Amino acid sequence: MTTLQTPGPTLGVVGGGQLGRMLAEAASPLGVEVVVLDPTPDCPAAPVARDQIVADFDDEAGIRELAARADVLTFEIELADQDVLERISEDTGTPVHPKPSTLRTIHDKLVQKRELEDAGVPVPPFRAVDDADDIRAAIDDYGAPVMLKARTGGYDGRGNVPVESKADAEDALESVAGPAMVEAFVEFEREVSVIAVNGDDEIATFPLGENIHVDEILRETIVPARSSEAVSERAYEVARDVLSVMDGRGVYGIELFETPDGEILLNEIAPRPHNSGHWTIEGAQSSQFEQHARAVLGWPLGSTELRSPTALANLLADVEENQDARLRHVDRVLETPGAHLHWYGKRTSRPGRKMGHVTVSGDTDADVEALLETARELESAVTFTAE
Amino acid sequence: MTTLQTPGPTLGVVGGGQLGRMLAEAASPLGVEVVVLDPTPDCPAAPVARDQIVADFDDEAGIRELAARADVLTFEIELADQDVLERISEDTGTPVHPKPSTLRTIHDKLVQKRELEDAGVPVPPFRAVDDADDIRAAIDDYGAPVMLKARTGGYDGRGNVPVESKADAEDALESVAGPAMVEAFVEFEREVSVIAVNGDDEIATFPLGENIHVDEILRETIVPARSSEAVSERAYEVARDVLSVMDGRGVYGIELFETPDGEILLNEIAPRPHNSGHWTIEGAQSSQFEQHARAVLGWPLGSTELRSPTALANLLADVEENQDARLRHVDRVLETPGAHLHWYGKRTSRPGRKMGHVTVSGDTDADVEALLETARELESAVTFTAE
Repeated sequence: MTTLQTPGPTLGVVGGGQLGRMLAEAASPLGVEVVVLDPTPDCPAAPVARDQIVADFDDEAGIRELAARADVLTFEIELADQDVLERISEDTGTPVHPKPSTLRTIHDKLVQKRELEDAGVPVPPFRAVDDADDIRAAIDDYGAPVMLKARTGGYDGRGNVPVESKADAEDALESVAGPAMVEAFVEFEREVSVIAVNGDDEIATFPLGENIHVDEILRETIVPARSSEAVSERAYEVARDVLSVMDGRGVYGIELFETPDGEILLNEIAPRPHNSGHWTIEGAQSSQFEQHARAVLGWPLGSTELRSPTALANLLADVEENQDARLRHVDRVLETPGAHLHWYGKRTSRPGRKMGHVTVSGDTDADVEALLETARELESAVTFTAE
Repeated sequence: MTTLQTPGPTLGVVGGGQLGRMLAEAASPLGVEVVVLDPTPDCPAAPVARDQIVADFDDEAGIRELAARADVLTFEIELADQDVLERISEDTGTPVHPKPSTLRTIHDKLVQKRELEDAGVPVPPFRAVDDADDIRAAIDDYGAPVMLKARTGGYDGRGNVPVESKADAEDALESVAGPAMVEAFVEFEREVSVIAVNGDDEIATFPLGENIHVDEILRETIVPARSSEAVSERAYEVARDVLSVMDGRGVYGIELFETPDGEILLNEIAPRPHNSGHWTIEGAQSSQFEQHARAVLGWPLGSTELRSPTALANLLADVEENQDARLRHVDRVLETPGAHLHWYGKRTSRPGRKMGHVTVSGDTDADVEALLETARELESAVTFTAE
């Protein structure tokens, strides 16, 4: 039996960026409080969090303070240190969700892929890379190009290097400092993702989203994806298999490839709410952030049903160099029916930085391609520079 | 041209109760920050506001500090002191919305009704009360019962006394300490309300809500109201006439009577987001709180369109005496698809106090009476006491 009190339960969140901010926005109606830990003073989550502890993501004293104030610890960045979290959780008795062991699995892409493959999750062919010969052998086996990936530390496409030919193997390996792995390059029809929720004795999946990347950065998501019913069902099945490998409650962003012949292959996993799930705030019955709060607290999950087809466009700072954050011409967004602005409150615009997003939701029978068109127009209308 | 910066504009809000809390929740995605002023330490809005200034609602030093930190001042309680606000706004140059003159009009129900009548707003017959003879004269003119009302300080039905016969006039007048007025008792078919938004050169109205009161306390709201199209249109027309008397931007809750022959009469006005508009968070394209933030900042208003029929049930503390706030059996709410819980984070349950609310939204063609049934079931399922 779930009982609410005042003050409500407190989530201690490692990381206070936009994910922490949207988590705090979603937690408040449930009477749930959020304290974030982030090294940047006045981080994006700070204005709507109960408090911010200013400390590095792996700062032991800071995380101990966070644990002391929290009923449950969670994180909104993969950079959270699994060993520190595990130790502090054991010492203080404050649970961590997802479990640090999950971070350990995900942090090393080679370990991750091996465990997923063992669990029956379809992954692109891959192998460990010790030297350039391994890359050349991969090209022999899978054909060129192949994708060389740093085993640790990469996200948003960072640390990923396509290798076009055997002659490029040495240079590519050098550019990826540290341990690496190599994967077959997947020719895909589209990139899709499932936002999946690991609850207490229950699992929920949001409707399949379709992701449009440019230069490996997520630009847009549309829901529902333009995949067939069968492909969508297969994606949910794969997502459930992925969760079977993940230990601990919470939201997971599961990025997938849909191949031209309708197969689903795993691409990446984020053990946290994911950019490709931001559409759920307006588009689903409960948002991924509300679900994350419910899940880590061990509360019943909410409905993941679609409310309306929705398109999301990220607002990436198109600036030449760092400057004070500023978004101009937002009236177009504010005036468009069904459009919703999310500004993350970052102090500085850096080239390509995610500064916010716009969603456009339609009627229940709206054409998602038309919504995408509108979202793109709105994204083009706003500017980060003086013009 | 609207430009967003970081940190975004700050709303200085007199009052930090549930309205301030939901305002802060809605302001955050827009990059708008909220500072509240409230005498209760750790008031409901505190966990999601940038800051709370602990001071009485009419504390001049506190409000000056609020004005210094804010781009615009607003209030979430009618108890805000119009004279203090006006003086500080003039001194500091920080605008106040709605305008203090509006508070002045609304604070005195006799002045309010006179100004509204002059503007062509249909109001129940009323007259000033200087002594018991005026009440008896009203009974002669309007028939018994009549409604005796304190001219100032009343809300949620407080200060309203039905007078059944001339013999009760003296006692009734005594129970209303201070200046009073008397109104004809309106036999109504239903109580409805329009949440109206006064923007910068634009006005918006949300779809008509139907309110179910018990003992003059709002228990439930359903949207759309079960009124005819013609009655609804008349209600929007009256709401617009009401706004013509109100000075300053912001959201107004306009409570109306629908008479058995389909006439609309004004009941009460709240110059702020209103309990009967909480359904807009899930049920409308933009919530009344988002609209209030947009309006007071002079930004374009959002769409007020209905997303889905919605029923709201208030969670009123059914306790015998004050106790620590606690809500049990919330699982039923959390598990019901389309249901959303809003817990206000008040520290103490007092008999009859509004502690939160539940909304139930359906598909676009859902039957609102069935939604009301579900909302009532959920309201009955949760308990404030140990059982």
